[in-house]
Formats: sequence, C-alpha cells, structure tokens
Amino acid sequence: MTYTVQIKVMPLKELLDPQGKAIEGGLQNLGLNNVEDVRVGKNISLQINADTPDQAKQIAEEASKKLLANPVMEYFEVSVN
Amino acid sequence: MTYTVQIKVMPLKELLDPQGKAIEGGLQNLGLNNVEDVRVGKNISLQINADTPDQAKQIAEEASKKLLANPVMEYFEVSVN
Repeated sequence: MTYTVQIKVMPLKELLDPQGKAIEGGLQNLGLNNVEDVRVGKNISLQINADTPDQAKQIAEEASKKLLANPVMEYFEVSVN
Repeated sequence: MTYTVQIKVMPLKELLDPQGKAIEGGLQNLGLNNVEDVRVGKNISLQINADTPDQAKQIAEEASKKLLANPVMEYFEVSVN
C-alpha cells in the first residue's frame, strides 16, 4: 500500500534562524506586529510503498537520517497520513 | 494569548519540483526504492498573539498571502496548535 508521509525538518531551537528573523522583520513592515519567533524549515512530502504505516514511518525516518536532515543543525518530525 | 501556528508552503501539484526529483534520485541511490513523488516545500512556525485561534489563523493567512507564499507557484496550509 502507498502511504503519504510528511517530514518536517526545522532548525534546532538553540540555533539562530536568520531567515526567520528576516521574515519577522518583513511582517512587521507590513503591519503584522503580533507575530514573533518565526522559524523556517523544510516540509517534504513523499509517497512510500510499505505494508504498514509503521513501516512507512521507519523508511521515512531512515531517509531523514541519511539524506534529508542535518542533525547538527536540524531536527525532524515524521507524520504518516 | 499566544498561539503556535504552522504554515506549510508547497509547490502546486501541476508544477515540476526539481528539488523533489533530486531527493528522489538520492534516496534511490541510497537503496530506498519504495519512495516516490517527493515534493519539497517550506514549513514556517510562528508565535502569534491573538484573542482566539480563529484570529491567529486569519493573521497567518494574511501573512502567507502578503509575504510567505507565491500563489503562482505555491499553495499554503495553516494549522493552529
């Protein structure tokens, strides 16, 4: 069966996120002052052929560890729909 | 109150996604052959000060339309936690 999997890769909370800071500044210039702590990461959607949702999740976690996320700077979250 | 809002910005389904194609190739080279249709977008997390979750969502949608998503190439989804 084919499962749709979403992988969210975000910068670690301890690190600065210059892209997020830039967006925060941009939003304030547009008059949206009630927005803070903006952080920008990646969202990767995949179709995974697997027997069970758990197996699909395992494949997605392997893909994240091997290719998609840099553990020095990023963490990832996998969700299977 | 402060709400944590996630905005997912993904390339439109009608468009090619070269970055996703590259990841798909990379995963196959790593032996993960059961992955297909990889698409890469952005995930933006924000803290929004608002009175209700609905209001926070509205602010996030305004931010997406004005700054975060390019409607010619991308669609966005807002979720309030």
